Amino acid sequence: MSVHKLNIVSLIRKKRDNEELSPDEIKTLISAYAKDQVPDYQMSAMLMAMFINGLNDEESAAFTSAMLYSGEVLDLGSIPGLKVDKHSTGGVGDKISLLLAPVVAACGVPVPMISGRGLGHTGGTLDKLESITGFNVNLDLDRYREVLAKHNLVLIGQTEEIAPADKRLYALRDVTATVESIPLIAGSIMSKKLAEGIDALVLDVKYGSGAFMREKSDAIALAQKLVKIGESFGKRTLAFLTNMEQPLGYKIGNWLEVEESIDGLRGKGPDDIMELTYVLSGAMIYLGGKAASISEGIKLAEQAVSNGDALRKFRDIVEEQGGDTSLIDHPEKYKKPEIVHEVKARDDGYVFSIDAYSVGMAALELGAGRRSKEDRIDPVSGIVLEKKLGDQVKKGETLAFLHTNNTTYLNTAETLFQKAVVIAKDIPKIEPLLNCRIDKDGIHESITQ
Amino acid sequence: MSVHKLNIVSLIRKKRDNEELSPDEIKTLISAYAKDQVPDYQMSAMLMAMFINGLNDEESAAFTSAMLYSGEVLDLGSIPGLKVDKHSTGGVGDKISLLLAPVVAACGVPVPMISGRGLGHTGGTLDKLESITGFNVNLDLDRYREVLAKHNLVLIGQTEEIAPADKRLYALRDVTATVESIPLIAGSIMSKKLAEGIDALVLDVKYGSGAFMREKSDAIALAQKLVKIGESFGKRTLAFLTNMEQPLGYKIGNWLEVEESIDGLRGKGPDDIMELTYVLSGAMIYLGGKAASISEGIKLAEQAVSNGDALRKFRDIVEEQGGDTSLIDHPEKYKKPEIVHEVKARDDGYVFSIDAYSVGMAALELGAGRRSKEDRIDPVSGIVLEKKLGDQVKKGETLAFLHTNNTTYLNTAETLFQKAVVIAKDIPKIEPLLNCRIDKDGIHESITQ
Repeated sequence: MSVHKLNIVSLIRKKRDNEELSPDEIKTLISAYAKDQVPDYQMSAMLMAMFINGLNDEESAAFTSAMLYSGEVLDLGSIPGLKVDKHSTGGVGDKISLLLAPVVAACGVPVPMISGRGLGHTGGTLDKLESITGFNVNLDLDRYREVLAKHNLVLIGQTEEIAPADKRLYALRDVTATVESIPLIAGSIMSKKLAEGIDALVLDVKYGSGAFMREKSDAIALAQKLVKIGESFGKRTLAFLTNMEQPLGYKIGNWLEVEESIDGLRGKGPDDIMELTYVLSGAMIYLGGKAASISEGIKLAEQAVSNGDALRKFRDIVEEQGGDTSLIDHPEKYKKPEIVHEVKARDDGYVFSIDAYSVGMAALELGAGRRSKEDRIDPVSGIVLEKKLGDQVKKGETLAFLHTNNTTYLNTAETLFQKAVVIAKDIPKIEPLLNCRIDKDGIHESITQ
Repeated sequence: MSVHKLNIVSLIRKKRDNEELSPDEIKTLISAYAKDQVPDYQMSAMLMAMFINGLNDEESAAFTSAMLYSGEVLDLGSIPGLKVDKHSTGGVGDKISLLLAPVVAACGVPVPMISGRGLGHTGGTLDKLESITGFNVNLDLDRYREVLAKHNLVLIGQTEEIAPADKRLYALRDVTATVESIPLIAGSIMSKKLAEGIDALVLDVKYGSGAFMREKSDAIALAQKLVKIGESFGKRTLAFLTNMEQPLGYKIGNWLEVEESIDGLRGKGPDDIMELTYVLSGAMIYLGGKAASISEGIKLAEQAVSNGDALRKFRDIVEEQGGDTSLIDHPEKYKKPEIVHEVKARDDGYVFSIDAYSVGMAALELGAGRRSKEDRIDPVSGIVLEKKLGDQVKKGETLAFLHTNNTTYLNTAETLFQKAVVIAKDIPKIEPLLNCRIDKDGIHESITQ
């Protein structure tokens, strides 16, 4: 005990003094913490030292590995083909997983997708899937393999067996102001994704008002760290830097986003949704060995949408996982919110900016999100935008509809939303959605290669 | 609870991002921690952020104040005169408090001294006093005032009422590698000293192998911080930077140090002990308003030793606090150790260096110190040096005697001691014991003014 205590203190001291920790030291620390042999007060001091002094690439890989091997690492070797997944750092209205997973699977690349729930201003893929009546995201790992083998696709939630050290560490980081650290975020993301049994990974790293990373430079640093970690595990890893200056698409809220995804799978989604889906899918199809380039992958993705394969794949997986397929065929039959409140423009001009963070928080107030992990969400609530960046508006014209079943926070939500939307006389300069591509060779301005 | 949690996290975030905490924020944090409203894992993250990013002078004063007012702050207003104490950052063989307290009290300056116990390689004044059979350091605060009023002197241990937040924080710092921070150390020292009800304070800040601060630059920074904090509370504060390259005096160990102190009070102590006693006493007498300068204070201190007043004062306080005064009159009657082991020089030459830290650890192995707070010490054990820095030695000549009642660690102690003493052909360059004086106006090369 005394020796053990001394060891942990000496490890904290090393990181505090900005010295490098060896892979063995990091492994010892994390595995002891996962086994309850290191108290939270020591780990939080270490996390703060890591936060302030950082982790170099070798330390980051060791940290990821320690969290990865704190739990089960799936072996999907029995399933033919290169398994590819995507991870997004999260944004408002980001329903791309719902479109891309069936698109890529329809193109013959197995997609073993383990997703999370929403917290704060961003939604979670799991919550969106669960808005489809009957859809079961809690499959055990045998069933996970079986569904994947059958459909090239499976959509589940994180199980207790996946990276348990990450789960404990994340909870501790949340209450000790040690969340927003690039190596700690990267380790958390990659340990969970690597546990899925993937061969390659595509990352959507977002920056801007609605993203976890407000600054582009931070997003680039995170993308580079993620790629380095992925490659150090022998997994081909491609990251795209994407702009989250306004919500993605027009719909924010769990069922609303499923609805917009179905539109997209029918080839009728908003431009930003379709563009991002095709590029990320194209990259996954390329990494999955079914296309010779990202551009060719994008063409295959477009075909899978236009010929209906992608929508059929989505319908199949909904059916396989117990969801009500009639809602996929007829989304208009979904239960309606009690209140649909119109938000009107207060000025003439152009939509100059939309603060995505505040729009996400407004959706949360309406019932679409969670303040804490224990909160329940209302699948039907959310926001439907009528105007987006650069659109001309007249005073009194509809900016958006707020959907909810609870009037308690409707005023708060409307206030948040009105503050989020700035109308000006000038047309704003709109940045491209996709900023750059980052791989092991560096940063590329060209999105495809 | 949720609001409270958010507040603490936002305070941690501020310090993490190297922003300044307001006095109110620091007060809220420390008082909530003292009331068990902030969990250790949050406080340790904060301590690490404070350790790495530091605290400016205003924050340091607020931190000290928060710890000070977490407990009782004594009011000694009913006792006439300016109350003055001394604090040393601790060293090996540092028994100066035992000499200086009676010297200063004998010169008419009240000395309300609350001391600590030893831990690790340094001894504590309390343990030394308790080696005097019967001496009671556990007086309550009423009795503390009474003894001080009667003798201008009282020597007690820290009570539960004094700066309880510091006690809790120190225990947490000890296991989270956040001890060696200048503002945290300064806050810990000053909160305890200011609680004593003093009007002025003299500080002995040590540097070198046997000191808490190995580097002179760190010791200077600590001294400056201590002076700034003291002055910000309206207490005149003087610091002396002193060299701890070798143990102070010839005797290390609890009773051995009392013995050497009695020699000193008889005017027959080693030169370094006498020099440091006179300078620190002189500064205290000056701050206590009984001398017009430090130099004049030094003269008064020398007189108090030569005319026997200081030794009589020591005898009086031993009697008042229940100690056996026959041991003060006849120290040679003290019980003897079972083993007195001679350590011989292995080479001819000069004592080139003595690593005070290792000598302190050797004394600990013999029974004079504690590895952990629960360890018991043996008052009779310790080390008597026969040679000090610069002394010529012949191979086979006695370097020191190790005193102990337990043979178990005798070999370890001898090995530590032999390693600590380097004998070389050249005479070493010996730094002066007193390096400089630091007050609110800055650093002064002249020790007196």
